[in-house]
Amino acid sequence: MQDDPLQSLIKSIARLPGLGQRSARRIALHLLENREQLMRPLADNLTHAADHVHACDTCFNLDTLNPCRICRSDERDKHVICVVAHVGDIWAIERTGQFNGQYHVLGGVLSALDGVVQEDLTLDALLSRIEDESVSEVILALNPTVDGQTTAHVIARLLEDKPVKMTRLAHGVPVGGELDYLDEGTIALAFSARTSV
Amino acid sequence: MQDDPLQSLIKSIARLPGLGQRSARRIALHLLENREQLMRPLADNLTHAADHVHACDTCFNLDTLNPCRICRSDERDKHVICVVAHVGDIWAIERTGQFNGQYHVLGGVLSALDGVVQEDLTLDALLSRIEDESVSEVILALNPTVDGQTTAHVIARLLEDKPVKMTRLAHGVPVGGELDYLDEGTIALAFSARTSV
Repeated sequence: MQDDPLQSLIKSIARLPGLGQRSARRIALHLLENREQLMRPLADNLTHAADHVHACDTCFNLDTLNPCRICRSDERDKHVICVVAHVGDIWAIERTGQFNGQYHVLGGVLSALDGVVQEDLTLDALLSRIEDESVSEVILALNPTVDGQTTAHVIARLLEDKPVKMTRLAHGVPVGGELDYLDEGTIALAFSARTSV
Repeated sequence: MQDDPLQSLIKSIARLPGLGQRSARRIALHLLENREQLMRPLADNLTHAADHVHACDTCFNLDTLNPCRICRSDERDKHVICVVAHVGDIWAIERTGQFNGQYHVLGGVLSALDGVVQEDLTLDALLSRIEDESVSEVILALNPTVDGQTTAHVIARLLEDKPVKMTRLAHGVPVGGELDYLDEGTIALAFSARTSV
């Protein structure tokens, strides 16, 4: 069964994140039942994206253009850089429509467990961007996990003697969240950062 | 953003069963990070399977060969046909290694709600198989849902005057199942079909 195209297809679907054997089989069957409407367009889109989407040389965002649409836009503030771990974080922030600066994708966070060291991240590129460009503020939008905070700490130390303001996203109660379900750390932070009404 | 290959890719991934926008974004990013190891092989496997995997003219199983491997095998019993709704059911039964006959894929079950009528299923093909071939037993392996049982009933009526034995899979307590979590219908059926030890 090694060379069976159906088995190879199921195998490569099962390697996608969040999918297992069972869902891969279901997806493969669904694709074969919708060959022209789903299966071939998906194959074409995969090849097309693999050929045309690349990391931006400046901020490491993924785009068909290089520098990417955000880096080359004249309408965006060049003085503020928001540092994120992954490209997906850019999308999440862009969906809010609240940020109008530039981004910098680290490509992950430092992790002793996963063996991610400083050289694996785009820290050098971030440093040279800050030196070359007239950056006034660096916003660290990293996840509030141990690894995310370690990375934020390391970046803060690297930029210590640079003339830039360093900020991080506020912690607090998520909109629509229930206190009852929140962890103590978040509630404590929301208390200490309380605002007057 | 309509012609953006990244957005088109995410859109076509999100159309797969069981996936939404969020998981589609995650998968697209993961693919772009593993372009040569995952993304291009997946595209190739999709095209290859779309080109080479087809429904068997006899039993409607999916295979690169036509008739399929099961239909053309000399080692399998031609006298027993197991009727299933979908190709995935064949795979589930084949994994048990307990059945050595032929299959017949209906392509679904009758459903008033989804508007699936007799003509949408491969019932005519099943009837002519039974007439042409020397079939002695038809096993109805349809799901014990309302639609599945309706379909089984219709097939039983169609084959009423044919000289074939009709059977269905036994109902009972699943291996590893707990009585406490089973529905009353299953327990009742398991009681009435109890066997002596």
